[in-house]
Amino acid sequence: MLEELKDAYGTEWTTTLVDIMKNGQKSDWFLRLDPNGRIPVIVDNTQDPPFPVMETSAEMLYLLKAYDKEDKFGFKDELERSQCLQWTFFWHGSGAPYQGQVNHFSRAAPEKIPYAITRFKNETLRVYGVLEIQLSGKYSDAGPRDFLAGKGKGKYSVADMKTWPWVKGWERTGFTKEEMEPFPNVLKWIERIEGREAVKRGIGEAYTQS
Amino acid sequence: MLEELKDAYGTEWTTTLVDIMKNGQKSDWFLRLDPNGRIPVIVDNTQDPPFPVMETSAEMLYLLKAYDKEDKFGFKDELERSQCLQWTFFWHGSGAPYQGQVNHFSRAAPEKIPYAITRFKNETLRVYGVLEIQLSGKYSDAGPRDFLAGKGKGKYSVADMKTWPWVKGWERTGFTKEEMEPFPNVLKWIERIEGREAVKRGIGEAYTQS
Repeated sequence: MLEELKDAYGTEWTTTLVDIMKNGQKSDWFLRLDPNGRIPVIVDNTQDPPFPVMETSAEMLYLLKAYDKEDKFGFKDELERSQCLQWTFFWHGSGAPYQGQVNHFSRAAPEKIPYAITRFKNETLRVYGVLEIQLSGKYSDAGPRDFLAGKGKGKYSVADMKTWPWVKGWERTGFTKEEMEPFPNVLKWIERIEGREAVKRGIGEAYTQS
Repeated sequence: MLEELKDAYGTEWTTTLVDIMKNGQKSDWFLRLDPNGRIPVIVDNTQDPPFPVMETSAEMLYLLKAYDKEDKFGFKDELERSQCLQWTFFWHGSGAPYQGQVNHFSRAAPEKIPYAITRFKNETLRVYGVLEIQLSGKYSDAGPRDFLAGKGKGKYSVADMKTWPWVKGWERTGFTKEEMEPFPNVLKWIERIEGREAVKRGIGEAYTQS
């Protein structure tokens, strides 16, 4: 989102690295910004006092409201705004937490628990299927969509930004190409977004390649 | 939220029951409203065509925007609005999914998996602790708060409405009074909200007592 704002408006920011291997996100100075102790957090230093924002989705919506004056990554129409919020909350609450548990139980947990791995893999594939319903336009007269929210084929928005970084990591999460076959529109959507220059910089590709 | 709007503005609505024991929420007519197939969903029939909204948090924010014209359960100030969104997303993504997994692994799962039960119980207690930080005013000059979002002691808002129904169920989720002792401000907050007439009706108390 910050990289997109930079391309759209020339927005600038600085970054403070937090060493999560040393639990830097649980230190007192960080908890004052985000009592949940999770990265990332943003601080708007143009406010007096500086205003901290926690939770990725709320952070993007804050940036949208405060710095995307033309709603390039959001919507002016109230119904489209709601649709954008719906898909943002969908991934925030029904996608990320489950895919995160796949990662935990497949890799981080000290014991392999087949029931838990299967449960969270199945739930993650199910929510990929929900994205596929939306992107395929199954229940719409407008046909396949390019993006999650917005009229017609939709418009690239914070709903996509919230969702994409997780879903594009399907292979890393342990899914096979065969398991992804039921989601052709999701795979096309992943490619559509990864072509953006701001996205390449945002995920660090531009840096690791240089 | 609907009951609060009724008391504040006389808002009216009708209800359609969905039999989740028969997977009614996965039927075609319901998936057209919410492709995620989860209750509840709201449909605004004053829009043409009728406008469906999925995801509880997005539903409350929709009602706030469309039907709470005086922002009685939200905020006009942009920073307070953001704070309200932050706590709504916090519970939506970091609270509900974990407490939900405690319920699953403690009661619904066909096998008892101590590692999973402990993991999700600990995570839920941790997020109760985050609510305690906020409500105790630990990092604030304004002292203990009455509600999650808003200046000073805060104002009852959709952030509380999203969070309260889960947290007040701590006993049902399997926590002991001893486990809840570190969260005195959370317990007071639970009592503060359960006294509201709209809340009593919303959770069905008014009906089951009659």
